Amino acid sequence: MIRADVVLRDLAEVATLARGPVPRVGEAMADLAIVDGGAVAIDRGRIVWVGPERRLRRDVRLRAGARLVPGDGGTAVPGFVDAHTHALFAGDRSGEIALKAAGASYRQIAQHGGGLLATVRATRRASDARLLEETGARLRRMALAGTTTVEVKSGYALDHAGELRLLRLIPRLARRTGLRLVPTYLGAHAVPPERIRRPETYVDEIVRRTLPAVARARLARFCDVFCEPGFFTLRQSARILRAARALGLGLKLHADEFAAYGGARLAAALGATSADHLLRTPARDRRRLSAAGVTAVVLPVTAFASSTTRRSPARELVDAGVAVALGSDCSPATWVEEIPAVLAAAVHAGRLRPAEALTAATVNAAHALGLGDAGTIEAGRSADLSVFPVRSTAELGYRFSLRPSVILRQGKPVSSA
Amino acid sequence: MIRADVVLRDLAEVATLARGPVPRVGEAMADLAIVDGGAVAIDRGRIVWVGPERRLRRDVRLRAGARLVPGDGGTAVPGFVDAHTHALFAGDRSGEIALKAAGASYRQIAQHGGGLLATVRATRRASDARLLEETGARLRRMALAGTTTVEVKSGYALDHAGELRLLRLIPRLARRTGLRLVPTYLGAHAVPPERIRRPETYVDEIVRRTLPAVARARLARFCDVFCEPGFFTLRQSARILRAARALGLGLKLHADEFAAYGGARLAAALGATSADHLLRTPARDRRRLSAAGVTAVVLPVTAFASSTTRRSPARELVDAGVAVALGSDCSPATWVEEIPAVLAAAVHAGRLRPAEALTAATVNAAHALGLGDAGTIEAGRSADLSVFPVRSTAELGYRFSLRPSVILRQGKPVSSA
Repeated sequence: MIRADVVLRDLAEVATLARGPVPRVGEAMADLAIVDGGAVAIDRGRIVWVGPERRLRRDVRLRAGARLVPGDGGTAVPGFVDAHTHALFAGDRSGEIALKAAGASYRQIAQHGGGLLATVRATRRASDARLLEETGARLRRMALAGTTTVEVKSGYALDHAGELRLLRLIPRLARRTGLRLVPTYLGAHAVPPERIRRPETYVDEIVRRTLPAVARARLARFCDVFCEPGFFTLRQSARILRAARALGLGLKLHADEFAAYGGARLAAALGATSADHLLRTPARDRRRLSAAGVTAVVLPVTAFASSTTRRSPARELVDAGVAVALGSDCSPATWVEEIPAVLAAAVHAGRLRPAEALTAATVNAAHALGLGDAGTIEAGRSADLSVFPVRSTAELGYRFSLRPSVILRQGKPVSSA
Repeated sequence: MIRADVVLRDLAEVATLARGPVPRVGEAMADLAIVDGGAVAIDRGRIVWVGPERRLRRDVRLRAGARLVPGDGGTAVPGFVDAHTHALFAGDRSGEIALKAAGASYRQIAQHGGGLLATVRATRRASDARLLEETGARLRRMALAGTTTVEVKSGYALDHAGELRLLRLIPRLARRTGLRLVPTYLGAHAVPPERIRRPETYVDEIVRRTLPAVARARLARFCDVFCEPGFFTLRQSARILRAARALGLGLKLHADEFAAYGGARLAAALGATSADHLLRTPARDRRRLSAAGVTAVVLPVTAFASSTTRRSPARELVDAGVAVALGSDCSPATWVEEIPAVLAAAVHAGRLRPAEALTAATVNAAHALGLGDAGTIEAGRSADLSVFPVRSTAELGYRFSLRPSVILRQGKPVSSA
């Protein structure tokens, strides 16, 4: 007999996603392994049983004082995994919106002293306490929308000590918020202003000094590079990523967002875990991602916010046989915290079906972070899941602005209080 | 001495929007008439005083048992006015998303028995009780995101008795939800399936029978027509709107969403209160809207969800001197309830500045509904306002997914409980 200290019941559907290998590709992305009229039993923070509620009494014995959580006829889904964020920063850039309204591009705003380097200035100046407070508040709001695992990149210090400081804050943020955080070193987010005439010296610092220090102290699980014209060349990107790989870090790449620059091709050649953005990746390079088993992390809110002509190529990537994952890309440029808004963008602009979008935001996003034990509802896993007040997963992504009515993290209710 | 039974204080900013005539055009759209460090005093549901908190003690005397509402350093804005919704319907159309993912257009989905006519079938079948329950829940979720006034269109019955039934439900929804609802008769949403071979007979019914009945019983404030190829021609639209005008109804028009069909031009020629959508309106017709004083209601979430190539032309309309208002277009096709999501779309895709977007969602939206007494925070007005947990209105629309921390409707707190 299975014992449980928490039981979640009265659910229209439980989307377990517990089937087949990760990452999911093609039609498998639409298979959510749904239990109709399901219930979930949890013990000491772990899922111990998932099945139809009518079998609950037969299979599960409640411990004394067990908590019964009513699902009110809603739909349970795994805690969302946000596969791409720049959530660790200070300040805001609302002041730049006027330039954007006047038609300035990302690069033009940067040339006016705004953009990424404005956040670098604010982040360098900010104390640890301030970074922990502002970023912690963002992460808590993400959690209230159903996210339980978040990738967090460094990249707003752009010098050796500053990048290490940011990475060291990430485990502290995880303890503060209770979220599972996956740290990525993105020293190669931009060339810092003080080295703008000698960019190669910054690449040298990354390769010879910072990356070894990051690996030695296990401060990051991944290394990422912003491989775009005016940021890091293909050659520089390859050099940094090869060094990271030799040190045991997983590889990610900001690829083909502003231009078809060859980033996806490089990610495929290096066997990166993920290639991210991909707004302008040509069809032949999508096929290379598929062949190389690189997960495509699409960021449909960013596509919508930053491009007037491109929409997120999520559909095309799924159809090319690429494993697609989703991320918020939460940053001072695209300050979105809630995965339900990302699902809506993936469905309405990226043309994913709701089931595909949910897979992309759970098991496939976990895979994009190298996690084999997140993004599903199944016995043995940490009880990270949410209930949305809808009768079917088909409404997720179809309806904008949904929020969960119940959130459990390691079996404990998360609330805004 | 002014007496107050509710005082809202500890605010970084109060965006009163209380300046100049409505509608706001050009640079006036960016002038929010902000009171820094402001407070708002309310008595018996009406605003009685707005000013800097330091003057509160001098100017306002609290009644016994008065309630002090803390703003926690946030920003107060007028209750949002949602100028365009199809919120009164039954069922959902999540099942169609797969067709959309496969690339089907709005019209192709309709040809497969989906789209608008699927909602007409569901709405015709639904009982009053079900329509009140489902629509009431939607309106309450809108209210929790800061909306206090909502335009609600009929248009999912498409026959005489059914359209009148829908319009009669609107005052009942207003009583249920406490929201201020503005009813619009949109019998000309589509030609009903049973008349598809004789569309002129449906126009006859609207003009000769339904419109007079709507006017006689004062069931609607506006008449709207879906003027698009395959729906209602320019000639049919003009005939319906002229009849409505003769009966004393205000005029609205769904114009130039799918094609540059001449809808905006017609709205200008008829002196309509608003022309809505306008995705494909040519520049010369934007100037006609400006010259005729027609308010443009832009629906940026719909633009994002329904068009792969067009973005909301909000910037172009403001620059052409048109008074721009915002609406959610909440419907089974674009199920968005929250104005903060609409502000984000207006800013990031429609290229409005946050202040312009806020004007568009308050005073200009009120004007698009013929309301001279909504959308501002000023003495004498109903105390419909929200506090957002941000230090400045510049963050509204810049940040996605914001929700108010305090909502007052007629001076009373609105909560999710």
